[in-house]
Amino acid sequence: MARAWQLTSYPTDMPGPEHFALVDVDLPPLGEGDVHVRNSWISVDPYMRGRMRPGESYIPSFELDTPMEGTAVGVVVESRAPGLKAGDTVLHSQGWRDEAVGPAEAFEKLPDLPVPPESWLGLMFATGATAYFGLLHAAGAKAGDVVFVSAAAGGVGSAVVQIAKIKGMTVIGSAGGPEKCAFVRQIGADATIDYKAPGTMEDKLRAVAPDGISVYFDNVGGDHLDAAIACANYGARFALCGGIAGYNMDTPPPLRNPMEIIKSGLTLRGYLLYEYMDQLAGFRTEMAGWISDGRIRSVDTIFEGLEQAPAAFFGLFTGRNTGKMVVRL
Amino acid sequence: MARAWQLTSYPTDMPGPEHFALVDVDLPPLGEGDVHVRNSWISVDPYMRGRMRPGESYIPSFELDTPMEGTAVGVVVESRAPGLKAGDTVLHSQGWRDEAVGPAEAFEKLPDLPVPPESWLGLMFATGATAYFGLLHAAGAKAGDVVFVSAAAGGVGSAVVQIAKIKGMTVIGSAGGPEKCAFVRQIGADATIDYKAPGTMEDKLRAVAPDGISVYFDNVGGDHLDAAIACANYGARFALCGGIAGYNMDTPPPLRNPMEIIKSGLTLRGYLLYEYMDQLAGFRTEMAGWISDGRIRSVDTIFEGLEQAPAAFFGLFTGRNTGKMVVRL
Repeated sequence: MARAWQLTSYPTDMPGPEHFALVDVDLPPLGEGDVHVRNSWISVDPYMRGRMRPGESYIPSFELDTPMEGTAVGVVVESRAPGLKAGDTVLHSQGWRDEAVGPAEAFEKLPDLPVPPESWLGLMFATGATAYFGLLHAAGAKAGDVVFVSAAAGGVGSAVVQIAKIKGMTVIGSAGGPEKCAFVRQIGADATIDYKAPGTMEDKLRAVAPDGISVYFDNVGGDHLDAAIACANYGARFALCGGIAGYNMDTPPPLRNPMEIIKSGLTLRGYLLYEYMDQLAGFRTEMAGWISDGRIRSVDTIFEGLEQAPAAFFGLFTGRNTGKMVVRL
Repeated sequence: MARAWQLTSYPTDMPGPEHFALVDVDLPPLGEGDVHVRNSWISVDPYMRGRMRPGESYIPSFELDTPMEGTAVGVVVESRAPGLKAGDTVLHSQGWRDEAVGPAEAFEKLPDLPVPPESWLGLMFATGATAYFGLLHAAGAKAGDVVFVSAAAGGVGSAVVQIAKIKGMTVIGSAGGPEKCAFVRQIGADATIDYKAPGTMEDKLRAVAPDGISVYFDNVGGDHLDAAIACANYGARFALCGGIAGYNMDTPPPLRNPMEIIKSGLTLRGYLLYEYMDQLAGFRTEMAGWISDGRIRSVDTIFEGLEQAPAAFFGLFTGRNTGKMVVRL
């Protein structure tokens, strides 16, 4: 018997406890080629909100009343597959539960790299890779660029800040409130914008970037994206990664002035991580080197216990996290 | 004495005769190094609307009660400059008038290429170069792409249609009304959309591009841009060239769903022609070859007489032109 979170209905705006249920589920018997894994860390991520809608998106919707998927790190308890043995640490997508059984192909034995296991949910996996490929490939940012990063205290944003500094860029980060701004400076940002402080985003960005920006890494959309467009120098490159400003709205905010994209010769590049999957090995080697050298910090917010998984997820939208949000089982 | 058009006030929405005056102006005496030119063709272009606003833009505003600038082809009447002689045909920016005097540096003697003189206002100059660099460089379009072009009966649009066909692409063009659509097919488009016909742009584009588009060349913005985003395949590239839908509005239309840029991994590339000025020679050679081989057609709408210059300009916004709009003096 395992315990798993299920989605019981699709939220229309902010998700809440009423949309989730923690249920007991039977584990299937261990067939030939299967493994049985006990989860030790599970990940909650903003993109999951997109799976909590019926209908088409770039990723499939969560099915109602079915254990939810999500990235997790676990330890093999029992194995009937040649490639995995009890005690192996694995990365897989049966999160939001304490134990899972499945074919060994669905569980990736973690490479032998000198990083802590929970980093495979953050800097070493989707969060870090999204930051790395978005900044360096989608936006093509280089040493000397002036980079604006929104949601810079979040999982992806805090990784972007640190990677940009390692690569010799000037970094401006936005975050909500003085404490988060202090955190963003602490991980290396040259300047910060408190988006909750009075004034328009455009005025606040112009104040810290009087000579304009050359790169924008967008996790937010809405007024952040409009402000970045207004303050961009000719030829600036934007990586569009997420739009958390609109994730809980029926109609996400528009981009107000597309003519500015022409006048400023901007390149806006939307991307999904899977485009870069063929370059994952090189990313992992470089990132593991930065982690073990102490040049980049895993800055997780940790919730304790499977029961807390929905609360950790809600916290993504109410600003409760600094860095990557994870749940320890 | 020369005659020149002046802007007498800045229009707030649609420009009309009340904003223009045709006045007599003195020609300065011909100094050392100057030339005196009689204009034979002048150009009217949508971008000029952007100069009819006070304040900052990517090009300077027209000064009120001062002869307006614009591209023109003329013939040298008298020269006190070594590089130019009477009878030379020149390209310059003192349009909206019949005669002009100025330093020889401001007049470019036309290269010896086998093309008609008025083509230097269209296919051989800004109109053709904007189409060429936008399609092939900003969007990076290649043989096999499915290209959607808005305002395909206009100056830039009709050049894009023809260049795309020469380069082996499939082309869908939008235009207003059955006659213009017939014209767009006549110059080579594989399919057309009448934006004035009933139905949404998105439904109409989907109907002619059931497998999606891989390139969009935007002259219009607004619902055309939104429809192109909705129908774009993953990884599609957009060249953003103009937004004629919003040129006569105080607040141009927004881009409604920036999240789709992420979900479809789109690249939106705004550009101004001057980025590509260093590659102009190669463009001119290739375009002149296509013109003299008859592979691309100058499809000008010609207004007769300097008096008609404002009427020709207004016609850009009321759909009176097919192809490039020029005035013959």
